[in-house]
Amino acid sequence: MIDLMQMGKMARAAARQLARATSAQKHDALRAIADCLESDAARILAANAADLDDAHARNIGDALLDRLSLNGRLASIASDVRDVIALPDPIGEVIESNTLPNGLRVSRRRTPIGVLGVIYEARPNVTVDVAALAIKTSNAVILRGGSETLRSNMALVEVIRAALLTAGLPADAVQFIADTDRRYIGELLKLNDYVDLIIPRGGQALHQFCRENSTIPVITGGMGICHLYVDQSADQDAALKIIENAKTQRPSVCNALDTILVHEAIAAEFLPHVIDRLGASGVSFRADPAAMALLSDPRVTAAGEDDFDTEWMRLILSIRVVDGVEMAIEHIAAHSTAHSDGILTRDMDQADHFVDEVDSAAVYVNASTRFTDGGQLGLGAEIAVSTQKVHARGPMGLRELTSYKWVIQGDGQIRS
Amino acid sequence: MIDLMQMGKMARAAARQLARATSAQKHDALRAIADCLESDAARILAANAADLDDAHARNIGDALLDRLSLNGRLASIASDVRDVIALPDPIGEVIESNTLPNGLRVSRRRTPIGVLGVIYEARPNVTVDVAALAIKTSNAVILRGGSETLRSNMALVEVIRAALLTAGLPADAVQFIADTDRRYIGELLKLNDYVDLIIPRGGQALHQFCRENSTIPVITGGMGICHLYVDQSADQDAALKIIENAKTQRPSVCNALDTILVHEAIAAEFLPHVIDRLGASGVSFRADPAAMALLSDPRVTAAGEDDFDTEWMRLILSIRVVDGVEMAIEHIAAHSTAHSDGILTRDMDQADHFVDEVDSAAVYVNASTRFTDGGQLGLGAEIAVSTQKVHARGPMGLRELTSYKWVIQGDGQIRS
Repeated sequence: MIDLMQMGKMARAAARQLARATSAQKHDALRAIADCLESDAARILAANAADLDDAHARNIGDALLDRLSLNGRLASIASDVRDVIALPDPIGEVIESNTLPNGLRVSRRRTPIGVLGVIYEARPNVTVDVAALAIKTSNAVILRGGSETLRSNMALVEVIRAALLTAGLPADAVQFIADTDRRYIGELLKLNDYVDLIIPRGGQALHQFCRENSTIPVITGGMGICHLYVDQSADQDAALKIIENAKTQRPSVCNALDTILVHEAIAAEFLPHVIDRLGASGVSFRADPAAMALLSDPRVTAAGEDDFDTEWMRLILSIRVVDGVEMAIEHIAAHSTAHSDGILTRDMDQADHFVDEVDSAAVYVNASTRFTDGGQLGLGAEIAVSTQKVHARGPMGLRELTSYKWVIQGDGQIRS
Repeated sequence: MIDLMQMGKMARAAARQLARATSAQKHDALRAIADCLESDAARILAANAADLDDAHARNIGDALLDRLSLNGRLASIASDVRDVIALPDPIGEVIESNTLPNGLRVSRRRTPIGVLGVIYEARPNVTVDVAALAIKTSNAVILRGGSETLRSNMALVEVIRAALLTAGLPADAVQFIADTDRRYIGELLKLNDYVDLIIPRGGQALHQFCRENSTIPVITGGMGICHLYVDQSADQDAALKIIENAKTQRPSVCNALDTILVHEAIAAEFLPHVIDRLGASGVSFRADPAAMALLSDPRVTAAGEDDFDTEWMRLILSIRVVDGVEMAIEHIAAHSTAHSDGILTRDMDQADHFVDEVDSAAVYVNASTRFTDGGQLGLGAEIAVSTQKVHARGPMGLRELTSYKWVIQGDGQIRS
C-alpha cells in the first residue's frame, strides 16, 4: 500500500530544497551516481538478473529481453550521467531583461518546473537518465517504471538516493513507486497539488491513458508516422541512402520512416531501386495502386485501408505515388502524427514550400528522419520527444525541463 | 443542437489556411474588425441592450451590469484591436539556428499553436480581444462566452467573421458556441483531435473544471492570493503607497493584494498607518493575534482559520506579523497561489534572498502587485495570466500563443 499523496508532499518539499542547490552540489550528486553505478555493479546486475530470469520464464522474446538487460551497459549509463554534468546548468539563467519607461526593471528568470511524474516501460536505463536530467534541472521526480524491471529499478533508485544524500541533497528528490499495480498510475495522474508535469514514455496507449486521466499537464508524444516525399528533382542516390537509413537503422523507434511519397515522374525509375536496396535488408512493402502497377515483386503487396495510418515499428514501408509536392503535403496533413516528415529534392523553392506547409515537430530537407533526437540535434540529452504544440515540441532537453518566473524590481512604483 | 466535432474540423481547416496568411492579410482583418466595431456600433449596442435588459430583470447588481455593458466602450475596444496590429507578428520568427558538425542546419521556427478553445464569462470585450490575438498569431479559435452576454457576443462574432472574409481569410478561424448549455464546455474539453490548447478565463471553479475534465492541455490560472512582505528596513511611506495601490486600485482582480506580512520590529509603528490610510478607502482588516494585540480599531477583526487562504476580491486585507524574511517566505509557500508576491525593503540582500526563494509567477521588489499584466509588463497585450509552470507562466502575450517546429536542412545526412 503506497501513499502517493505522501510521496507528493515529500517530493514538493525536496523540490524546494533542490531549487536552492548549487550547480556544484547537483554535480556532486551526479558524479556519485555515475561512480556508484560502476562500484555497485555487482548488486545492480544481481537485481537485473532476477528480473531477466522472470522475463525469460515468461518467454517474452529476445528483443524485449535485450531491452531489459543491464549486462555490459552500466559503464555506458554512467558515462551518459557524466555527460549531463558537462552540460550548462539552465537554472537561474536570465532569459530577458528590460527596464520599462516607469523605471520598473522586469526580467524573466529560469526556474525548475518543480515536481515531475515520469511513467515509463521496459528499459531500466531510463530510471538513471531521467533522474540525472531531473537533478541537473533541480526538479524532483516521482518515477513509475515497468513491472519487468522492478528489481533493477529499485537497485538503481537506491544508488541515486544515496548519491543525493552524499551531496547534501534530499533523497526524496527522486522517488520510485515500488509497486507496479496500475492503480498507482491513475493516482499519480490526479496528484495536481504536488506534481507539475507528467511525462509518459511509452506507446500510444500509455500516452492516451495519461491524456484522458490526468489533471496535471501531460507531455504527449510517443507515436511517429513519419514520411519522406521524394520530389522529381531529388538526387536519387542520396534519396536511396536516406530512405534506407530512416527505415532500417533502427526500425522500432518513433522517428523511423513509415511511408515514402514518390513523385509520379520518377516513380517508375526510382521505386525498383528502393525495393532492391531496402529489400536486401529485409524490408517488405505496402504499395498504393499506382505503385503496385509499377512493381512486380513478391515483397510488395497492396496497401490495406489502414496501412497509411500505421506506425510500423518494424521492417515494413508504405509507398504512395503522388503528382507533386501539394499532394504530398496533403497526404502528410491527413496521415502524419506530426512527428518527423521530410522532403528530398534539389529544388529549393519546393523545399521551402514544404517546410512552410508541413506542420510537424521536425521538418526535414534532404536528411534522414532519424535525427529527431535531443542528442542528435544538439540538446546534449533528451527526456522525451513531444508531438504536442504547447510547452515544448520535438526533442526535449534540459531547457524544456524548466519554467520561469517574472522578477519585477522597482523603487516604489504603483499602478495608475 | 451544436455539433462541436464539426466546429473542430472547420477550425482545424481554417487554422491551416491562417498559418499561410501574410501579416498584411491578418492586419487587414484586424483593421476591418476595428472599423466595423465603430460603423456597426448601433447593431452591436442593440444586441448588448437586450442582454442588459435581461440582466437587469434578473437583478444581477450594478457591478456586474457595468461589466456587461458595451455602452461608450466600442471605440476603446476598436483601439485595442488597432494596438494589436502595431505589435510585431511572431509567426515565422527563427528562434535559434545552428549548424551541427555533420553539416545539418538546425533551426526552430515559430508557428501558430493551431486551434485554441477559450472559455470565458461576463465581459463581451473578451470576445474581440481574444479573436484579435488569435488572428494576429494565426491561431483559429473556438469561443464559449457567458450566458449573460450571448447576444452581444453573437453580434461581435458576426463582425469578426465578416472582417476575416474581407481579408480573404476563412470565417471559421473564429467560431462561437452559440448555446450556453454547459454540456458544450464538457464537449469542447474532450475535442483533443481538433483543439490544441484550452484557455479558461474566469474564477477558480472554471479553472478546476477545465483541469479535471479536459483531454487537451489547459492553461490554469485565475486565482491570486497575493502577498507583500514589509521588511524592517522598508521605506514606510513608499510601502504605504504600494500597499494602498495593490489593495484598492482595483480590488476585484487576481493581482490585487490579499495579505501583508509585517516585520515585528516595525509592526507597532507601521500597522496603525496602514489601518488609517487604507481604512479611509473603505478597507477592513483581518489580523493575526500578534497584529490584533497592536491594534484597537473597529475595522480590524481577528483573522479566521481560512482568512489567509482567501482571495478577497474586495476591500479586505489580511495582516500577519512575522519575525523576518524566512517566516514571510514560509507563509507565502504555504498560502500563496504563486501568482504575485513581493517584498518591500531597503536591504538588497534580503530582496535577493526573497526573489530567489519565492516561487511565484511574478516576484516583486518595492512595487505594487498590480503590475502582473501583459500590458503593464511590456507584452503589448494579454490573453491570460498563467499560474502553472509549463508552456507559459505569468502574463501571456502573443509569443505565448505560439509553438515552434524544428527545421533540419541537410545534403544527404544519415544517422550512423
